Amino acid sequence: MRMKTLQLDLGERSYPIHIGQGLLKDSRLLPPHIHGISSLVVSNETVAPLYLKQLQGLLAGYNNSDVILADGEQYKTLDTSNQIFTHMLEQRCDRRTTVLALGGGVVGDITGFASASYQRGVNFIQVPTTLLAMVDSSVGGKTGVNHTLGKNMIGAFHQPQCVLIDTDTLNTLDDRQLSAGMAEVIKYGLIRDTEFLDWLYNNMGGLLKRDPELLIEAIYRSCQHKAEIVAADEKEAGQRALLNLGHTFGHAIETGMGYGNWLHGEAVSVGMMMAAKLSRGMGWLSNEEVEYTETILKMAQLPTCPPKKMTVKLFMDLMSVDKKVLDGVLRLVLMKSMGEAVITEDFDHDVLLQVLIG
Amino acid sequence: MRMKTLQLDLGERSYPIHIGQGLLKDSRLLPPHIHGISSLVVSNETVAPLYLKQLQGLLAGYNNSDVILADGEQYKTLDTSNQIFTHMLEQRCDRRTTVLALGGGVVGDITGFASASYQRGVNFIQVPTTLLAMVDSSVGGKTGVNHTLGKNMIGAFHQPQCVLIDTDTLNTLDDRQLSAGMAEVIKYGLIRDTEFLDWLYNNMGGLLKRDPELLIEAIYRSCQHKAEIVAADEKEAGQRALLNLGHTFGHAIETGMGYGNWLHGEAVSVGMMMAAKLSRGMGWLSNEEVEYTETILKMAQLPTCPPKKMTVKLFMDLMSVDKKVLDGVLRLVLMKSMGEAVITEDFDHDVLLQVLIG
Repeated sequence: MRMKTLQLDLGERSYPIHIGQGLLKDSRLLPPHIHGISSLVVSNETVAPLYLKQLQGLLAGYNNSDVILADGEQYKTLDTSNQIFTHMLEQRCDRRTTVLALGGGVVGDITGFASASYQRGVNFIQVPTTLLAMVDSSVGGKTGVNHTLGKNMIGAFHQPQCVLIDTDTLNTLDDRQLSAGMAEVIKYGLIRDTEFLDWLYNNMGGLLKRDPELLIEAIYRSCQHKAEIVAADEKEAGQRALLNLGHTFGHAIETGMGYGNWLHGEAVSVGMMMAAKLSRGMGWLSNEEVEYTETILKMAQLPTCPPKKMTVKLFMDLMSVDKKVLDGVLRLVLMKSMGEAVITEDFDHDVLLQVLIG
Repeated sequence: MRMKTLQLDLGERSYPIHIGQGLLKDSRLLPPHIHGISSLVVSNETVAPLYLKQLQGLLAGYNNSDVILADGEQYKTLDTSNQIFTHMLEQRCDRRTTVLALGGGVVGDITGFASASYQRGVNFIQVPTTLLAMVDSSVGGKTGVNHTLGKNMIGAFHQPQCVLIDTDTLNTLDDRQLSAGMAEVIKYGLIRDTEFLDWLYNNMGGLLKRDPELLIEAIYRSCQHKAEIVAADEKEAGQRALLNLGHTFGHAIETGMGYGNWLHGEAVSVGMMMAAKLSRGMGWLSNEEVEYTETILKMAQLPTCPPKKMTVKLFMDLMSVDKKVLDGVLRLVLMKSMGEAVITEDFDHDVLLQVLIG
């Protein structure tokens, strides 16, 4: 068994991120992070048949029950959180219960929010099974659900006790989901690591063929970036916002197209292209750099153009509720140069308009 | 204008509690605590006609809107929080919006939870208009909503920026609500201040007649106790639980009788009597002390016996989801002596049974 471990440094809220093959077979990893006698696994109807038994095998020493949610972004709602609360109350879960999120970003976000809110907060552990959740959503403590008027608008900062990434679970992930996760991997290259970007350019073929060593390397480097940024700015007072490159446009696409139709990573891929083009319009990126960005995204089988349905008006309406809006002023994450993201309200609105028109 | 100010010490989350007459006429108190350009008042259909305009007058310099909720504990739900989220998204409220809770404990709890969760947290200010909210729920950052299976089961710790207590608003409070608030005032005497208990015994008549000076004194001393306890134990790892004297029984009564039928303070009054009797059964209180407790509660026009409908089974079922249960073991706040509460799992279950039978 190969395992690499990172530590997310947040004082008394610090926790390890274990990355490796076969971790769901290792009974030593979870117990140090479960303090009571009760555990609860939240998963969805796609992931549970594949990995629930394996995870429950690791929880044999604890009272355990499970909640299986419907699969899809369209179920990331307050109502679904309430389904978890109801189960927890019926099972008499108390404040020392540890909740485990087994699945992708949707399961992790909603389970994290339910854990943050149940009896004002219980412990939880992330066991991500999609590339996107492994490299992004399971790390850093952002939890939440969607509102019909905006994505991730209801939530909490609630750090897990541990993140357990078994890369073997990627073997059952479909190609479209793998590509969607790759969007967030590429993001780290674009915002702060051009060397990693070149590495991705050189290794995308092997990554999409699921070479285990390459995947572990990509996930490790992604989590390292995420952990560094979150440790420096847990509540997003500053640089953490840079992790949202492409997300203001992307969230608008996800909400505008109906939750669940576009995968988050797909929408972010388009959003990053839009941010790159806007950055070019500001004179910050060259044509070649924008094309290089597009090439890598396309190598990862990702879309790079917004869908026709996304009119300028729909984009503007949906972007006006973005969490980076402050006192009514829209701020965007752009690229000052390759590998250097900035958050700024000083962009040319005509150039933005050009980008939105497409 | 008379005003007394307390500070709740929580490091960077510290805030003032202003207590006095006519504070809703003073335009200097709120602006230091509002950082963005937008404010939102959440109130209910009973309180809004009385004080909304007055409060909005103090917010003239800010973009302002309001949400008016239905009045009553039965509306303290996730659905009602969602009503607030929808309004905030429609109004394009951003992360710098400050939300003001104008009303009693229900409005404060639900508004606090919505503020904790909207975009993962915005600032809020408590403007309590009931005695109960003034002396208890508006101070200390406990926010939340009810679940059909248990009271306050969904929530967050989220401290306000400021608590503004205008005792003039008590002039429009009905007698039943005033008495309900007095239960939490008496609680402070029972758990940690026998001198205050004697003061209440001597002044209950004047308090119920709404003598402004006596009310300010009672509220000030109550908030002082609350602030001391919360400063020492914000997240209820230890002594904060003592504030829940009578609440395990009380929450069971509220839930069992249907939210909104028994006022929280009424249920807590009965719960404190039950705790006193259980403490007597443990040999910790004398007959005289239990009778003195009952006398003061009755002087405040409060009930001291549980309703018939509350069978032993119903009590036990509802108490099993209490937030003080740990690893399946029920813990109760009892009185080791007058003015000295303890939280303990070491009580005699036969004595508990006797108390539940009544």
